[in-house]
Order: sequence, then structure tokens, then C-alpha cells
Amino acid sequence: MCYNQLNTYLLLIFYLINMVDSSLSHFNKSVNALKKLKISGYGKDFLRTWDKTEDEIRATATVAELVRDLYYAGISPRVFNQEIAVSIFRDNSTRTKYSFASATNILGLNVQDLDEKSSQIAHGETIMETANMLSFLTKVIGIRDDKFLGVGHNYQLEVAKSVDIGYEEGVLAQRPSVINLQCDEDHPTQSMSDFLQLIRYFGGINKLKGKKLAMSWAYSPSYGKPMSVPQGVIALLGRFGVDLTLAYPKGYELIPEIESYAAVQAKKSGGSFKITHNMEDAFTEADVVYPKSWAPYSVMKERTRLLKRSDKKGLDELEKQTLANNAKFKTWTCTEEMMKLTKSGKALYMHCLPADITGLNCKEGEVDASVFARYRKETYVEASYKPFVIASMILLTQYGVKTPEVLKQIIKRNQKLAL
Amino acid sequence: MCYNQLNTYLLLIFYLINMVDSSLSHFNKSVNALKKLKISGYGKDFLRTWDKTEDEIRATATVAELVRDLYYAGISPRVFNQEIAVSIFRDNSTRTKYSFASATNILGLNVQDLDEKSSQIAHGETIMETANMLSFLTKVIGIRDDKFLGVGHNYQLEVAKSVDIGYEEGVLAQRPSVINLQCDEDHPTQSMSDFLQLIRYFGGINKLKGKKLAMSWAYSPSYGKPMSVPQGVIALLGRFGVDLTLAYPKGYELIPEIESYAAVQAKKSGGSFKITHNMEDAFTEADVVYPKSWAPYSVMKERTRLLKRSDKKGLDELEKQTLANNAKFKTWTCTEEMMKLTKSGKALYMHCLPADITGLNCKEGEVDASVFARYRKETYVEASYKPFVIASMILLTQYGVKTPEVLKQIIKRNQKLAL
Amino acid sequence: MCYNQLNTYLLLIFYLINMVDSSLSHFNKSVNALKKLKISGYGKDFLRTWDKTEDEIRATATVAELVRDLYYAGISPRVFNQEIAVSIFRDNSTRTKYSFASATNILGLNVQDLDEKSSQIAHGETIMETANMLSFLTKVIGIRDDKFLGVGHNYQLEVAKSVDIGYEEGVLAQRPSVINLQCDEDHPTQSMSDFLQLIRYFGGINKLKGKKLAMSWAYSPSYGKPMSVPQGVIALLGRFGVDLTLAYPKGYELIPEIESYAAVQAKKSGGSFKITHNMEDAFTEADVVYPKSWAPYSVMKERTRLLKRSDKKGLDELEKQTLANNAKFKTWTCTEEMMKLTKSGKALYMHCLPADITGLNCKEGEVDASVFARYRKETYVEASYKPFVIASMILLTQYGVKTPEVLKQIIKRNQKLAL
Repeated sequence: MCYNQLNTYLLLIFYLINMVDSSLSHFNKSVNALKKLKISGYGKDFLRTWDKTEDEIRATATVAELVRDLYYAGISPRVFNQEIAVSIFRDNSTRTKYSFASATNILGLNVQDLDEKSSQIAHGETIMETANMLSFLTKVIGIRDDKFLGVGHNYQLEVAKSVDIGYEEGVLAQRPSVINLQCDEDHPTQSMSDFLQLIRYFGGINKLKGKKLAMSWAYSPSYGKPMSVPQGVIALLGRFGVDLTLAYPKGYELIPEIESYAAVQAKKSGGSFKITHNMEDAFTEADVVYPKSWAPYSVMKERTRLLKRSDKKGLDELEKQTLANNAKFKTWTCTEEMMKLTKSGKALYMHCLPADITGLNCKEGEVDASVFARYRKETYVEASYKPFVIASMILLTQYGVKTPEVLKQIIKRNQKLAL
Repeated sequence: MCYNQLNTYLLLIFYLINMVDSSLSHFNKSVNALKKLKISGYGKDFLRTWDKTEDEIRATATVAELVRDLYYAGISPRVFNQEIAVSIFRDNSTRTKYSFASATNILGLNVQDLDEKSSQIAHGETIMETANMLSFLTKVIGIRDDKFLGVGHNYQLEVAKSVDIGYEEGVLAQRPSVINLQCDEDHPTQSMSDFLQLIRYFGGINKLKGKKLAMSWAYSPSYGKPMSVPQGVIALLGRFGVDLTLAYPKGYELIPEIESYAAVQAKKSGGSFKITHNMEDAFTEADVVYPKSWAPYSVMKERTRLLKRSDKKGLDELEKQTLANNAKFKTWTCTEEMMKLTKSGKALYMHCLPADITGLNCKEGEVDASVFARYRKETYVEASYKPFVIASMILLTQYGVKTPEVLKQIIKRNQKLAL
Repeated sequence: MCYNQLNTYLLLIFYLINMVDSSLSHFNKSVNALKKLKISGYGKDFLRTWDKTEDEIRATATVAELVRDLYYAGISPRVFNQEIAVSIFRDNSTRTKYSFASATNILGLNVQDLDEKSSQIAHGETIMETANMLSFLTKVIGIRDDKFLGVGHNYQLEVAKSVDIGYEEGVLAQRPSVINLQCDEDHPTQSMSDFLQLIRYFGGINKLKGKKLAMSWAYSPSYGKPMSVPQGVIALLGRFGVDLTLAYPKGYELIPEIESYAAVQAKKSGGSFKITHNMEDAFTEADVVYPKSWAPYSVMKERTRLLKRSDKKGLDELEKQTLANNAKFKTWTCTEEMMKLTKSGKALYMHCLPADITGLNCKEGEVDASVFARYRKETYVEASYKPFVIASMILLTQYGVKTPEVLKQIIKRNQKLAL
């Protein structure tokens, strides 16, 4: 009887475990898909999408979606038991800042934002020193440094190299991941969110093949917006068979190497890439439109040159000139008429937010208020992927090939987010 | 024998469970009291006490006291497994800021304070957008916006509506609670702390019936203090049978609708309400005195009007006039002589802190140093309720009618706050 | 059979427990060493090393090393279940700020940094009030206040006294620990890190006996660096048999009472103490050199006097004079030639960082770039002890004589830092 009793208990436990397993089978499918991807070279950082293989990009998307699904199901993806996530914002931020705070937090870390003004960094400290001093009990360093051409990405590389050395020398117990929260070249947490939005919208990565996407410059009353968003979008989507049209007024080029990279990738992946100086042309029959302002490559180069010489007068003059030049292209804006040119007049409108909306937050801007209103919800959903993209980057940089195993444990553990 | 052994174990477990239950019976009594209150309409936000029914106010007090008791007993009330609490302070704050940080923290959340200057909000982003962008993994949004008449409460309402829409549209996985950390109309985390202080001091909610409370204007050398504290106090305590006397020099009216509300409630609840322009009159035979400076309604209205027109000169002129007018009423101060007029000379002195103390932090202020010194400890205890009030508001807005069940689990779980 | 089965289980459990115990025996040795030290008078704060007995200093070092070892082994030292750690930085900070955030975080707390500007403290609030208002759910208060002679330590004492009163009066449920993150007199989290670096470098506390350490002033282009680092170093190391040489140009005295204390302690502990005005003399045959700039005692006194009178002109004049005087001593710098004078030319170079490095972050500074480069790694390791020193101070001030028991639980529990 005692034996029977034990057996009954065991059967009950067996039944409960299987019940749980069956309700979690949806999550396990994602893990199995992940296992089929080659991620052994993922590396310890996420700086630019083009540093990653196609499989690694797919893995990043898969893990982001899984963490999101777990979150919506009220299951905690927490893998860390406290410790620090450092954020360094050298430019303003709202959504990326909160996305980073939320992502690190849900994994069990606490954000410590570095205030370079009230720190001793002005003191003349080297990047090598700062990077190591911030990393003794740190799992992740997120950096936004998008203001100066030729600076942002290099700064992130130097931080990464510094913590490599610190770890190799035994100064650090662990190697923190460096995550790019926007640099002068790429904005991978944004482009990966855009990617996930398109995957959801069209029903799968493979459905992106042959879709026409218009990444277009648009007029804005402000000056000096970074090029990293359009660059990030064309460089990433070119790799998944999208028919890319990059549109801008003459003189508003992006970094040439990135334009070339996108062209080569698009061809290789079965998509296409063309540049036009006619916005109507880009919008015609487009499945997706992404109208967004940026400062031209030549202006960004000149700006960095003047900044290095601390040429205040030159900088003011450059701003004046650029704004005057921008004003010549006020017709580059996403109106209802423009939208009518798109596929069945119903292309998906995308934006990294905040948008300059005509008549709402500026007199003349990137998009008509009525167009934005119709797609407002979609842009919010697009933004909502960012915390999960960041969480995915942290998991993959920290766990590498062990990521599927860790995710399995998270699913099996089935820890609740709230009582 | 094996069966006996198992039985012995079961008995031991049964005994241990019951031992724990009995030592926690004190806490369970509070939960049972809570169960008798109708809280099905509590809602997702706590903006003003007058938006809540009497039962809902009682529930807020009961849960706050219970969480405080658990805390003093070293038992963790943690219900969340990480996630974010956003705070937006549009005015200075020390105790409310730390109370919010402490309350959210002890429940398992991490505060992310929104710095509107270093965010992209200046960019012209809508409230709708900001509110949703901050809320993807957020359980609570706490807001202080008390500077401008007709603005603060409306801003909080708009944030609440925005996350309603975000949640309905599926942009947000959850609807974060919006908690008023002081607006132009009410300061509910303060008035609820005052309420708990009075309940403790007099020995129960029912003991407040017939107690005379003097909410009185007092002189301060500073200008433009919000009306939300006196408004919050009269609006809340009028509902529990208190005999309210609101005292101020002519011209120092509060928002008329709130004065009327307090009068109606006081009458309905078996208390009373009168306005006097004589501080002695208010203090005479008072059980409780709350001498506190505020800027008059008419000045607050004019100030908002000037601000909207960015009339810097007009604002300076208004400040000068108001300070000059205040100076006429320097005798409106809580001296030892004034205290002698109160019931047996021993009324309870209350203040939301920091007080303007004559001879201590200003030449002439709201209260004599000797009076304040005698009641210093009581004002600190009064302040100490605030974190627990905020925790209570979060639990009730998040769990609604399930709150008693959640509290039962917390008690039964008996998780320690520290090793 | 059922009985046998149970027995098998019990044996298996017994085996597993013992296996764990054996792999953790290294950690338990530290706990046993700790148990032999008298720490019953450790107290609730860590303000200055000279407030602690030799046993208490040894205990602080032992616990710091143990927490570090646990961390490197991936074992969580978390003892708190949420709650707040308050930091108050009245001067810039990078490494101490992150060390405090990391230390409190790994123990389970969340840092809330007090921004005195956006708080209501300017309002004229007393230290008594602020200290209590910040402490309702707070376990630790860390304070940096090093700018003004005669102010920093006293401020920390007053905060400590204030929370004593709050706790005694029942305003606070607990007495938070006050930790000195640098004051005008001592910088104990730095000197204890230096101490641990020397213990590791030489292979034990007892190996410090008879080692010659040169704590020397060095030229820096900046003005007004605090004296707390050299004071902290001589006051602490004098107690452990070190042969101390304090070197500075005439007029660059430290606080006289601290110089005397170090001299008395050095004699008592079997070491020695001398002051020289010749840097070569100090470096000759030294085992350790610590070249570091500071502002002289007389200047610090005058500066505080002028500040209290808000004498802006006098302060500017003082800065000019002091910088001019500093410039007379540019030869006080740690060159390769100076290093050759040390024991076998290979003394350990120490610095609290960031250092003023000649030709790297300044034209002429405290140390040659080549010397710093050779010891860079060692200075980073020196800095890496700080989070663990702070964690140790928190554990010992919070748990006192129960600390060994708590550490045993941490070891036995064997909770992982990451999945």
C-alpha cells in the first residue's frame, strides 16, 4: 500500500509535468527552431547587424519573439540574480533608454546610467580605464553615441576591446556584453524591431521576399538627425530578399560603403536595390514606406571636422546652410496623395518615432497627421519590439550556443512575473 | 512502519503549517476585514480620493496598514518579479520620490525616473506616444505635476487614457496603474498618510467622528505653494465625520468646488465644515491643527494665465504682489500661544513637511521652533506611512478584487525581507 | 523495500549535501577565520578605519575577500529581498559610485541616488529630517562629502545620529548603516581596497610587516584634491607593521592629528613612520610607492574659511596662489628614474585612480606614462576590490556578530548568480 501510495504520487507528478509541457509546447517549438541555426560565432557584442551572419540575425529575431511571447504569457525570462547593466547615453533618448532599462530589468539586472558630467571622466580618464572601472560586477554595457561621424562605432569598439583586455588580464570576473543603442553607422535595436514588425505584418521572414520597401528621406524642420536609422534599415533588409528603394534629394547621400553593402546584399538575397531622387517613384507600388529625415553624409563629415576644431562659428553657419537647403525639399513628405501611389494605396507606414507630424508637432514635417493617425498603432507595435530585441541580444551575447538550453530551462521553470 | 513514518511526517507538516498560521493570525484578520469591503469598482488608477468610494478608501488604508505591519515583522510583500515603475516628477520632491521608489521596490519593481530634459519629449512628442513608449514592460506610472492650475490632474487623466488605448489596441501587454504623486487638485498619497496617522493617533477610523480639525493657512516667506495638501485633507477627512474648520485670510480661497465638496461630505458623514478668517477661532478647542502655507486660488489662476502667455514680466510682478500680500499675515503662525487655545493645549500638530520653522530655517514661518520640536516625531511618523500608502494603491489598482487573495498568499508564503 | 527505497533516497541526499560541502570547504575556512575575530563592537556604521579595532579591520578584509571569491565562483551573496540603498554624492565620482551601486545591488538592494538639487533640501530642511525621510525602507546610506575641511565627517556623524534617533523613536523600522564613501578625513573604501591589494600582492596580512611604503605627494596641474586618500593610507597601514614614509614639499602637511595617529600606530605595530620633504629619499628601497597629489592642510583650512564667508574673490586668489605654488614642485613626479631608486627597481606602484599621467591626460603630472602603463593592470585590480569592501562593510554593520552565520547560510544555499 505504501508502495502504491508512492506510485500514485509519482504518477500525479508525471501527469502534472506533462500537462505543463504540453501547455508550453508552443515555446519549445521556437527553441527547436533556434537550435537549427548556427550561432557559434555570435560573439560577445552586438554592434552592427552586418557583423552578424544571416543565421545569427534569424536567431536574434527568434529569441526576441520567444521572450516577447513568454512575457505576454506572464512567464519570467529572468536569468540573472541582480548585478548591473550600465547605460551610456551621449545623446537624448526616451524609447531606447526605457527599452534598455526594461530589457535588462526583466532579465534580472539593474540599470546604472553613467552621467559623464558628474563622473570623473572629464578628469581625462582613458576609455580603457572607464570601461574597466564600470565593469567589475557588470553584465551589459549599452551605448548610444550617434552624434559624430567616425566616432560612435569606434568608441563602442574601444569599449569592447577594453573589457576584452580587462577580462583576459583577470581584472574582470566576466566579460560584459556591449550593445549598440545607436551609433553613427547602425541602430540595430531599431532595425531589428523594424524587422520583427515586418515579419509579423507579412507573416514570416520568407514573406519579405519581393516586397517593395521605400526608405525615403523626408523633410523635417530640425537639423542633424543621424543617418543610422536609414542605414540600419537598408543594410538589414537587403539581406532578406526585399526590393529596396532608397530615395533622397541629390546631396542627401548616406555613408557610401553602407549603400554599397545594401546593394550587394540585396542582389545576393534575391532582392534588389536602387537609389532614386524622386519620392513618388519610390512610393509607387511600394508595400512598405519609411519616410524619415536625416542629415546628409557630406554635412555630417563637415560637422565632425568643425567640431574637432571647436569652430563654433563654422558650426552655426553649417546649421543655417543645411536648414536652408532642407527647406528646398518640403515637398518630400508623406501625404495622403503620396500614400495613394503605394500598392492598393495601403502600404505599411513605418517610423522609428518620434515623427515630425505636419500640423501636430510642427508646421511642415515628415508625414501628414491623417496618415500618421491611421498607422499610429502600427508604429507603436513596431516600437514595442525593442525591449525584447535588446533582451535577445543580451541572452545571445552572454550565453552563445548555450542559449537554447537556457531558454528551455526558463520555459520548464515556468516562473511567474507576478503573484 | 513506513506508513507510520509517512504519517508522522504529515503530522509534523500539519503542525508546522498551523503554527505558522497561528503566528500570522494577526495579519489574516486584516485580510478578513478587507474582504468585507466593496472594491470591485476600484479602477486601474489612484488620482483623487474623491474618485473612490468610502469602502475603497477604507480598503486603501487597511492594505497600507497591513503592508506596514508585514514590513515591521520582516516579511516581504513582493508580488512582482522585476519589471519597471516609471516616475515623472515635474516638480521637486524628496519624500514622495523616496516613498515611491521604496514602495515600488519592496513590491519587486525598479524605478526609472523620466528626465524630460534628456529625453526626446521636447521634440514635440504627444502624451499619447510618451505614455505608451514608457509602458511596454511597466506596472506603475507615478506622476507629480502640481505647478499649474488646470494642468496636473488633466495630464494624469490623459496618461491614463493613453495607456487604456494602448492596452485595448494590444500595443501594451498590460495596463500600468497611474498613481497621483501630487497634482493641482489633490495629493492623495499625503492625505492618506495623514489619515493613517489620525487613525493610529485616535485609535481607529470611527474615533475620528466629532474630532475638531483646524486646516489653517499659515505664513511662509516663500511663494506659490500648491493648494493640493489642504484640498486633499479637507476633501478626505470630511467623509469620516470630522468637524473641519478651514481657516485662511480673506482672498486665500482654495478651489471652490473642492471646498463645496468637503462641506457636503462633512454634513453627510455626521461631521461639519466651516470656513473662518480667524486663525484663533480655528484653533480654539481643536483636537488637531494643520497650519500650512499655500498660494490663493486667484493667484494660481492668474499665474497659469500668465504662464500660458509666457508673460515673464507679469509673473515677476505677480510674485512680488503675492509676497507683499502674504507679509500682511505674518501673525498667521502656529505659536505656543496658539497651541494653548487647542483642546487642553494639546492638539496634535500635523504637517506634510518640510515645514517653514520660525528661527530654524526661516526668520518667520508657519510654526514656532518649540512647537515643531515637540511634535517632530509625530510628523515623521505621519510621513512614514507614505511608502505603504503607495504600495497599497499599487496592489489595489493592479489586483482589484483579487487583492485579499494575493495578501493571503503573501502571508502564507512568509518570505523573509533579509537573511 | 519501501523502507530501503526511502533509505536510498536519504543516503543520496546525504551524499549530495556532503559533496557540496566539500567543494565549498574553501569558503568555510574563511568563515572559520572570521569566527576567531572579536567583532561584537563593530557598530552600525563604517566612517573611518580608526574607529575600528584591528580585529574589526581584519574581519572587514576577510569578508570582502570571501564575497569576492563567492562572486568569482558564480555564487550569489544576496541577503536582502529588495529595499533601498541611498547614495549621497556631494562631489563627482565614477568608481566609488559604481562600486556602491554594484555592492548594494549584489546584496539585493537598489540604489536611489539623492539629487540634492531636484529635492526639497534647498528648502531649508534639517539633516535630521532628510536622514529620516530617506530611511523608511532603507538598509544603507552611502555618503561622499569630501570638499570642505571639518564638514564631511561631521555631516556623516550627524546623519548617523539622526537615524539613531529615528530608530529609537520608532519612526524607522530599522537602523540603516552609514558608509563613508570619502570624507575630509578618511576614504576607507579606498584604503581598504589598497590594503587588500597589498595583502594579495605580498601574500598575507603578516607579510606587510617591515615592507617600506612611500606615500608621496606628487605634482598635478589641478587644484584642491582631497587629503583623505593619503590620510586613509597612512592611518590604516601604520597599524599593520608597515614602514611608512610620508613625503611632501614643505607646507603640504596633512591633518596633524592623523599624521600623529599614524606615527603612534606604526610604532605600536612594530613598523615605523617618518616624514620627509625629499621624494627620492622616500622612494629609495621602497617596496611600494603611492605618488598622489593633494591640497595642503593650510590651503584646505583657508578654503573652508573663505567658503563660509562666500568670499568668491578670495577663493579665486587662493586657487591662483596654490596652483603657482604647486608649479614649483613639478619634479615631484613618479618617473622611470624615480622607480629605479626603489627595491630592485621594482616597487609596486599604487594609485586610487584616475591618475594624472604625464603626456597622456596632462602635460606634466603625477606619473610617467611608461611607469603607469607597466602597473596599469595592478591599479585596476586594486580598484576592483572596492565593491567587495563595500559589501563587506554592509554585511558587518547590518549583521554584526551574526555575520559568520549569515555567510555560512550563503555558502550552504549555493545560489547561482546566473542561470
